[in-house]
Amino acid sequence: MDLLDNVSIVLVRTKTPGNIGAVARCMMNMGLSRLVLVRPPKDDQGEAMKLAAGADAILRNAVTTGTLQEAVADHRLVIGTSRHLGRNRRNIGTPREMAGQIVPLLPQNRIALVFGREVNGLDKEDLALCNELIAIPSSAAFPSLNLSHAVAVVAYELFIASRASPSSRGRTLAQTEELEAFYEHLQMVLEDSGFLGPHNRKHMMTSLRQLFGKSRLEQRDINILHGILSAIAGPVRSKDSE
Amino acid sequence: MDLLDNVSIVLVRTKTPGNIGAVARCMMNMGLSRLVLVRPPKDDQGEAMKLAAGADAILRNAVTTGTLQEAVADHRLVIGTSRHLGRNRRNIGTPREMAGQIVPLLPQNRIALVFGREVNGLDKEDLALCNELIAIPSSAAFPSLNLSHAVAVVAYELFIASRASPSSRGRTLAQTEELEAFYEHLQMVLEDSGFLGPHNRKHMMTSLRQLFGKSRLEQRDINILHGILSAIAGPVRSKDSE
Repeated sequence: MDLLDNVSIVLVRTKTPGNIGAVARCMMNMGLSRLVLVRPPKDDQGEAMKLAAGADAILRNAVTTGTLQEAVADHRLVIGTSRHLGRNRRNIGTPREMAGQIVPLLPQNRIALVFGREVNGLDKEDLALCNELIAIPSSAAFPSLNLSHAVAVVAYELFIASRASPSSRGRTLAQTEELEAFYEHLQMVLEDSGFLGPHNRKHMMTSLRQLFGKSRLEQRDINILHGILSAIAGPVRSKDSE
Repeated sequence: MDLLDNVSIVLVRTKTPGNIGAVARCMMNMGLSRLVLVRPPKDDQGEAMKLAAGADAILRNAVTTGTLQEAVADHRLVIGTSRHLGRNRRNIGTPREMAGQIVPLLPQNRIALVFGREVNGLDKEDLALCNELIAIPSSAAFPSLNLSHAVAVVAYELFIASRASPSSRGRTLAQTEELEAFYEHLQMVLEDSGFLGPHNRKHMMTSLRQLFGKSRLEQRDINILHGILSAIAGPVRSKDSE
């Protein structure tokens, strides 16, 4: 099995079938094989197959889901692609940094790279499901890449990094579900403590997801954090009920 | 004038107008502006404009020539794109090596990057006009990139190299003192909560330092974390003194 078999390219609500075909082709160019389509468009003309130009197998084996949540459920790290624009968009890495960091994780962990729809990219709910964000460096005057070009650049960086170093650190990252359970627990305790309220809940939870996302939590990290939250939850609750 | 204005993308006998439009778009994404078309196809449907998606100016300003020789006449360095396959293909560099080497030359020199037609690439006569060759790393099983993907990867490497040296991602990491103050605060609250005791204090604080260390905390992260600890500390203390 190739290292890159543990990478999934996830396309969310793509509009144009031809783009899906072009993505399949560049995936195959760069040694990627797992394609997941979240609510893909109808393709009456077979445009996807035409533009796949020989990468038909990737399209035939593509998994289709109704939500991004389903698509990434069995992945341990979910990396979203974004633009540099916008507030709250600190902590955005480059495809090159990301590739160098995730290749050593690939032997033990399935990793998803998520691309939003043409023009608008990923929406807020999708972004919230991503542990990390990357943006492709591009001209400030005209930053929006064609979807298949964006996948091509990211896949190219992964291909190069996967051939670069055979290092493996053997870390097992927490699964998406485990992460979500932790964030739920965290949010509950922070609400009980009064730290979170309607005015800051969304914003603050996004910041905390980014903060913990950067550390690529492992299962043992999650266990420690649950332990802390449970230890704190007792006194926090009992004060609440005074 | 931008450095990259001295780079020309030269497309030789492209067959599909849509590919020319897609090339124009990714050139503009990556800050390139000079497009030269050697014997381009007729484009009755305006496919090129459609796929240029806003990069019309590049198409309108494109220079058209009858031969590659004319196209590169006023350039000082001509770099051809090729495949790794084939005999006689010594001295083939990568786009990354090329980008690193030519960016320092750009202030004084106009440089052409030449891409052959779909499927077949550049023929022998074209290759003979190139001073150097590069090939995009790709899977041996399926090496042939879509024309606009090939241009996208090469343009991306140029863009990055042209912006490389004075890089600044604008992140301000927390200072050691700030980190230590946070760990002290954390330890205090965790001791009050009963989570930490003499039996696990050392071991657990080491794990937590590793956990937070991995996320390369910034100053604003530290502020959020102090806020959480303070919000929790109240109830934790009051329980303690019951």
